[in-house]
Amino acid sequence: MSSILRRRDLSFLLFEWLDVEALLARPRYGGHSRESFDTMLNTCERIATELFATHAKASDEHEPRWNGERVELIPEIQVALRAFGEAGLVAAGHDSDIGGMQLPMVVEKACFAWFLAANVATASYPLLTIGASNLLARHGSPEQVRAFVQPMLEGRFFGTMCLSEEHAGSSLGDLTTRAEPQPDGTYRLFGNKMWISGGEHDLAENIVHLVLARILGGPAGTNGISLFAVPKFLVGADGAIGERNDVSLVGLNHKMGYRGTVNTLLAFGDGKHQPGGAPGAIGTIVGEPHRGLACMFHMMTEARFTVGLGAASLGMTAFLHSLAYARSRPQGRSLRNRKPDSPQIPIIEHADVKRMLLAQKSYAEGAIALELTCARLVDEERTAESTQARTEASMLLEIHTPIAKSWPSEWCLEGTSLAIQVHGGYGYTRDYAVERMYRDNRLNPIHEGTHGIQALDLLGRKVTMNGGAALILLSERIQQSITKAQHLPGLSDDASSLGKALSNIGAVTSGLFQDGDIARALANATLFLQALGHIVLAWTWLDLAVCARQKLEGAQTEDADFYQGKLAAARYFYIYELPKVGPWLEVLAKRDTTTLEMKDAWF
Amino acid sequence: MSSILRRRDLSFLLFEWLDVEALLARPRYGGHSRESFDTMLNTCERIATELFATHAKASDEHEPRWNGERVELIPEIQVALRAFGEAGLVAAGHDSDIGGMQLPMVVEKACFAWFLAANVATASYPLLTIGASNLLARHGSPEQVRAFVQPMLEGRFFGTMCLSEEHAGSSLGDLTTRAEPQPDGTYRLFGNKMWISGGEHDLAENIVHLVLARILGGPAGTNGISLFAVPKFLVGADGAIGERNDVSLVGLNHKMGYRGTVNTLLAFGDGKHQPGGAPGAIGTIVGEPHRGLACMFHMMTEARFTVGLGAASLGMTAFLHSLAYARSRPQGRSLRNRKPDSPQIPIIEHADVKRMLLAQKSYAEGAIALELTCARLVDEERTAESTQARTEASMLLEIHTPIAKSWPSEWCLEGTSLAIQVHGGYGYTRDYAVERMYRDNRLNPIHEGTHGIQALDLLGRKVTMNGGAALILLSERIQQSITKAQHLPGLSDDASSLGKALSNIGAVTSGLFQDGDIARALANATLFLQALGHIVLAWTWLDLAVCARQKLEGAQTEDADFYQGKLAAARYFYIYELPKVGPWLEVLAKRDTTTLEMKDAWF
Repeated sequence: MSSILRRRDLSFLLFEWLDVEALLARPRYGGHSRESFDTMLNTCERIATELFATHAKASDEHEPRWNGERVELIPEIQVALRAFGEAGLVAAGHDSDIGGMQLPMVVEKACFAWFLAANVATASYPLLTIGASNLLARHGSPEQVRAFVQPMLEGRFFGTMCLSEEHAGSSLGDLTTRAEPQPDGTYRLFGNKMWISGGEHDLAENIVHLVLARILGGPAGTNGISLFAVPKFLVGADGAIGERNDVSLVGLNHKMGYRGTVNTLLAFGDGKHQPGGAPGAIGTIVGEPHRGLACMFHMMTEARFTVGLGAASLGMTAFLHSLAYARSRPQGRSLRNRKPDSPQIPIIEHADVKRMLLAQKSYAEGAIALELTCARLVDEERTAESTQARTEASMLLEIHTPIAKSWPSEWCLEGTSLAIQVHGGYGYTRDYAVERMYRDNRLNPIHEGTHGIQALDLLGRKVTMNGGAALILLSERIQQSITKAQHLPGLSDDASSLGKALSNIGAVTSGLFQDGDIARALANATLFLQALGHIVLAWTWLDLAVCARQKLEGAQTEDADFYQGKLAAARYFYIYELPKVGPWLEVLAKRDTTTLEMKDAWF
Repeated sequence: MSSILRRRDLSFLLFEWLDVEALLARPRYGGHSRESFDTMLNTCERIATELFATHAKASDEHEPRWNGERVELIPEIQVALRAFGEAGLVAAGHDSDIGGMQLPMVVEKACFAWFLAANVATASYPLLTIGASNLLARHGSPEQVRAFVQPMLEGRFFGTMCLSEEHAGSSLGDLTTRAEPQPDGTYRLFGNKMWISGGEHDLAENIVHLVLARILGGPAGTNGISLFAVPKFLVGADGAIGERNDVSLVGLNHKMGYRGTVNTLLAFGDGKHQPGGAPGAIGTIVGEPHRGLACMFHMMTEARFTVGLGAASLGMTAFLHSLAYARSRPQGRSLRNRKPDSPQIPIIEHADVKRMLLAQKSYAEGAIALELTCARLVDEERTAESTQARTEASMLLEIHTPIAKSWPSEWCLEGTSLAIQVHGGYGYTRDYAVERMYRDNRLNPIHEGTHGIQALDLLGRKVTMNGGAALILLSERIQQSITKAQHLPGLSDDASSLGKALSNIGAVTSGLFQDGDIARALANATLFLQALGHIVLAWTWLDLAVCARQKLEGAQTEDADFYQGKLAAARYFYIYELPKVGPWLEVLAKRDTTTLEMKDAWF
């Protein structure tokens, strides 16, 4: 059995739980079939297993190095990414008229999870490229699509997101990179960008940077930011690669994990290269002037739930590694037979090890289910028959996004830590993969918007927008699952616990905004994010349990074990995890001001 | 201000809270004074700052390497350890008749915290040496004291603990290293030992291994284990260093953190060196045959709370690093003034950053207070006037030990993670020290007995021994603090919350063992460890708050800020942390069997 992901689990989620085959009736996906989905999943499992997982250790040990002329990466990265491109995987979700496969996003993401689990650092390059190509396909001009998107889909060009600057990370409104309009309609960009993953390498023929910058005369803050496509090499009207653009590498960041992903500080317009004989990085605007952030958010929403999927996939592979270890490692004896001359038992038989494995299973499998739910919502948003269904999918996606980014980043990091703990001292050594997975996963609560930023997005925007419509809709959907589960044997208690948590968070939320003191309402936004996250995951597990219970009837041994595993993980989540929501909501219910009142001098 | 530890805080704990000056009345400590304690603390701060902290990054980057002949370490490690030895710090707690300073352990540990915080990897060498010297001074023969302890106190010999074997880590009873009695009363040892920190190096003239092994004919399991002192080089009756003993390096472990601590797999008696012309590592027995584990536990108890102190010290220095960063990093604006053209504010002004700093402060300062409490109990156990006081100190120490090991290992690791989070992307790079501290701290829940082992020790032994006497005594002590606090303004609610948690855990504990099903009673031992840990920390914070409130009266500005900080951290702990106990105890109250019933095939 693979220790990257479990195909059986993906099939369950896609075809038994999310009813992905129903999408085949929609015109966009009519060219597909259950078989074509299976073929894609098989291909991805194979490439991930043979070309991605195989160099995860090596690319962690030999991180990218700048030799003064170029960024050196171990050769296995390029081999893997070529295979990824040649399999058409960058194009998987794109429209067929530009060469895409029009795969539903839910299948595309299930496919992509194989690469994230096998080698998250190498998977970052296509992650960014797919995101950039989606953004340009939607907001770019026909010229930009021809010049940049087409070669991306062919696997020849890679993409990046250039948002942060050294003094402007979470606070994007403070960025200072400037774009100067040129007579020919292009712009020249000047400024430095920080934390740019995939910012410099020779893995592709070209790198297309999507850069946020200010056009002189625009308003201050986030309303004056525009978006530009700035290639490393200029591209002629015929698609030929031309002159070097004025984008240069200032330095590499050396990270705890994700080491195979080159992470850079880039200078735009430092005059090192002077295209057309003048300094300034030449870029073309994407969308309208000063409206760049809205376009970028299109890419960021997808990037956010893909980051969550990465955290979940790392949690899943770490779980599978520790499960295999726990089955094979003899140590100690049962509390019911402690005779010192009896043989040692595999540690999987110890209650505390089972607890750590169940926790991991409930975190990782639940998180993957959550991310695929989000992808399914994107498909609904795009192809549902009624306007109402599309609008509802869109609202649900909005409120899901900060949770889909944060929850796996927090709990699958914890799961990865438990995977180390199951290994004991061995897990702390670099001989076992869980050590790397833990370091890799520590990035996820930081990039694409920290936990704190996601919490403000959730409570300060998504919950309050349109008079709370998204939260009301989410609550209705959760209530539907409760209604389905409340009379099923073994699930009625869980249904009732979820109902109580739901009405509790509803009451707390109304109370938070009662006096219009926004600073106080948002003071504990992170606890709200955690609480709603755990409630959404409890909902996910209840719904998975309902499905597993139905399928369990008449299932064969191996399948029966699989469904029993789902029921056990759901049980674990309701006994050990959902009750954590209580104390978090208590703090929110009090509208506690401990943090607001804390003074710098008291630290 | 130092970013290693805060001297002000140590003085508060030692002299305002723990009343260490009262110890001066005891004969053992009569040679000391407040001034001599201060001088020691100053010396340690200076050496830690100048020689330990300065190479923490370098020894992380250049980990120990075996060149085929010797283990190469960066030279700064030896320089630091020489200074440590020359300052007499290995001898700090020892009896004066063997050259010790007879410092109270509470002062010794406060001193040692400087080194743990500055560079936990380098501090591991004296940590082990101090532990080994204490064990030998107590259980060794006069010859062993002369041959080994004396040179340890002079800083010339180092010590190790050799317990684990590859197949016997948590399950010590399964170790197979054997000791063969020789006609001259010595033993020859044969077997491999795993995870031996400080097992091979040239930092000292000699390394004294304290090795658990079996003498042929002893009972199986833990009752048949004996303890031996096995030096790397034999030592003559005159103390001269002689022949190489048959102990050789098999390999080095490459770890996530703690990299400056060389960690080895050692072979005893593989015949590579043949002292006296025959294979077998020559050792002398420590204490009685088959009673070695009891002696080793003497070292392990101290090692366990010193591991906790290490976790706490790492949490403290990570807190101070993130505090300095939060004060200096401008990013974003207040929710009460979001004008984009106003200047950015330091992130310490954001509520969520204050939350992360308060959490760290409450974890780290609380954990250091807990560890010093344990050290103070050792002093009581050793020097209290009445037998009853000494017995009570001993019982309290027993029940504190698993918590003192585990609580900081879990929560100060979480604190170190929050220190990264405060730094944002920068914290994930190796340019900032918090990245290393996080990797270092991940070891602490594993070594010296994993969380799971500590949990079984707590619930399966310490709580049940002598009819639950230790837990009853602990509860009485907690109740005394509650009584003191319950009428103080601002603390009465906290006192009452702690009282409820205490009576709750009392009731749960009685219920656990009602039917004699030990496997079921211990199934959730880890949750019990967490719950009692949080209750003990809440007690610690209540007691610290009572002290701070008294001192606050009439305090000057800077001191007033310090005491306000203590009160705020206590408030944070009661609002955000203590309520977590509720859900853990619920699982225990149900005597939940989810983990026991989980089947391997269902995973």
